[in-house]
Amino acid sequence: MNLGIIGVGLIGGSIALDLKKSGLASRVLGADQLEETGEEAVRLGLIDECVSVDRLAVESDLIVAAIPVGALVQLLPDVLNRISPTCVVFDVGSTKKQICDALDQHPGRERFVAAHPLAGTENSGPRAAFTGLFAGKTNIICERNRSAADALARVEDVFSVLGMKTVYMDADEHDRHVAYVSHLSHVSSFLLGQTVLDIEKDERNIFELASTGFSSTVRLAKSSPDMWAPIFEQNARYLSQALLEYIMHLQKFHYHLVKGDVKELHQMMSSANEIRRVLDGIELKTKQQKEKTVTLNRV
Amino acid sequence: MNLGIIGVGLIGGSIALDLKKSGLASRVLGADQLEETGEEAVRLGLIDECVSVDRLAVESDLIVAAIPVGALVQLLPDVLNRISPTCVVFDVGSTKKQICDALDQHPGRERFVAAHPLAGTENSGPRAAFTGLFAGKTNIICERNRSAADALARVEDVFSVLGMKTVYMDADEHDRHVAYVSHLSHVSSFLLGQTVLDIEKDERNIFELASTGFSSTVRLAKSSPDMWAPIFEQNARYLSQALLEYIMHLQKFHYHLVKGDVKELHQMMSSANEIRRVLDGIELKTKQQKEKTVTLNRV
Repeated sequence: MNLGIIGVGLIGGSIALDLKKSGLASRVLGADQLEETGEEAVRLGLIDECVSVDRLAVESDLIVAAIPVGALVQLLPDVLNRISPTCVVFDVGSTKKQICDALDQHPGRERFVAAHPLAGTENSGPRAAFTGLFAGKTNIICERNRSAADALARVEDVFSVLGMKTVYMDADEHDRHVAYVSHLSHVSSFLLGQTVLDIEKDERNIFELASTGFSSTVRLAKSSPDMWAPIFEQNARYLSQALLEYIMHLQKFHYHLVKGDVKELHQMMSSANEIRRVLDGIELKTKQQKEKTVTLNRV
Repeated sequence: MNLGIIGVGLIGGSIALDLKKSGLASRVLGADQLEETGEEAVRLGLIDECVSVDRLAVESDLIVAAIPVGALVQLLPDVLNRISPTCVVFDVGSTKKQICDALDQHPGRERFVAAHPLAGTENSGPRAAFTGLFAGKTNIICERNRSAADALARVEDVFSVLGMKTVYMDADEHDRHVAYVSHLSHVSSFLLGQTVLDIEKDERNIFELASTGFSSTVRLAKSSPDMWAPIFEQNARYLSQALLEYIMHLQKFHYHLVKGDVKELHQMMSSANEIRRVLDGIELKTKQQKEKTVTLNRV
């Protein structure tokens, strides 16, 4: 199978590596806006050949579009116009609504699968790519009923080969959820980084104090603005809601801090501790069910 | 040497393990407010015997006070009253000003060293303790000239055995710096966790979406409120400043987001990307010096 990768960075490059390794892809074509990035991807062994998007669209059996979400909306309709009738195209963008809307009336819509593998690092470009990036993580597919059965099956198979579990969601629901669990984290991290940079009058002290806690919360502040600006633009509505809610919590905490109400601060932290359950993947329903059973047994 | 650990949790327990392993401590006494915690620490091999604080103060050659900072202010004057003239006491609290102030006029002040090893995890209690927690990290000692030379040397030696590099700082300067690089990160994380919990209407989706980015930024939200509430209380002044600055940045970002000014969002993120240099520990002065040299060469 000829695999085509549009955008040979962290995500596109890592998919190429894993699919070649698995034997699913016999030949990998790559296309990138920047010629030197494409050439670097060839040198690094991520792709076999660097070609134009037009040639890639014609010669590939399966196409992965791994470019910023703004560019996806521009490029995908044209790619779908050029592919062979059996070719399948999927994207890996962090927003889904605008991309699905852009292809809603496209005659080739059923050859497209809207996907979002939840994996990545704060690094970008071909050199950031590595095998195993996706293993054990979750992939989201949106509007599954808009894709042809064979196209959906082929993309599900790809994510299964990558070691991912696929869940299904409405595009709008997807965007709302990732606003909270991914996009907000990035905004929080970017601005935490900026706040610390602002008081960076004595740089030596700052980096010596950059202990465990700080570096993990601020890690995402290293992420690429080229990738994130269009994501934030496309998900402005839900991200704005999430941000306002977050700011509201911070202001409430600040109020109790200034007031010296330690009991309230303690209460707010205890409540947030509940996130441990979410991170450990324990379902609320299971927990509630268990508590209900305990209560019943006591009666 | 008899080592005394007041508070046998993550920090106290981990220090005990490393100092026993290194041979510096021949016998380790522990004291804890909760009897079962002390017994657990004995069972886990962190300490040899669980005793009262009074007995620990009398029988130890070196005492580590690893309890919440509110309790430190209460307990330390009394401990310093009871120790032998050659005994040395140091604390490991995340604030330094109020602790130093509480001991300022104490006749035993010179037997005390105010320390803050920048290490930890989001877990607490004896079972969270492990060897090597401190290796390669930074320790801060405040008001070094208020400690006797032999007391300071002994504590510096302890942190060197733990594998830490010690830096020296004014207590007030310490509190201001950690407000930004540690305390703010924790507040940010607690409330990010709460924001996500709030919209947790469909729990299944939330934890499936808890991908890499989210879990690292929210990790600190698991931290102990008992430990952090007194820290925030003692550092309210600087933490309030840091929080206001952070909220201001978030609001500015939100404004540009709602306005749809993607160029400004991009600019804010590019500026925050500079944090990479801080995390990599590259000094601003070195960088500025280099740029200056380049500029001069161009002229």
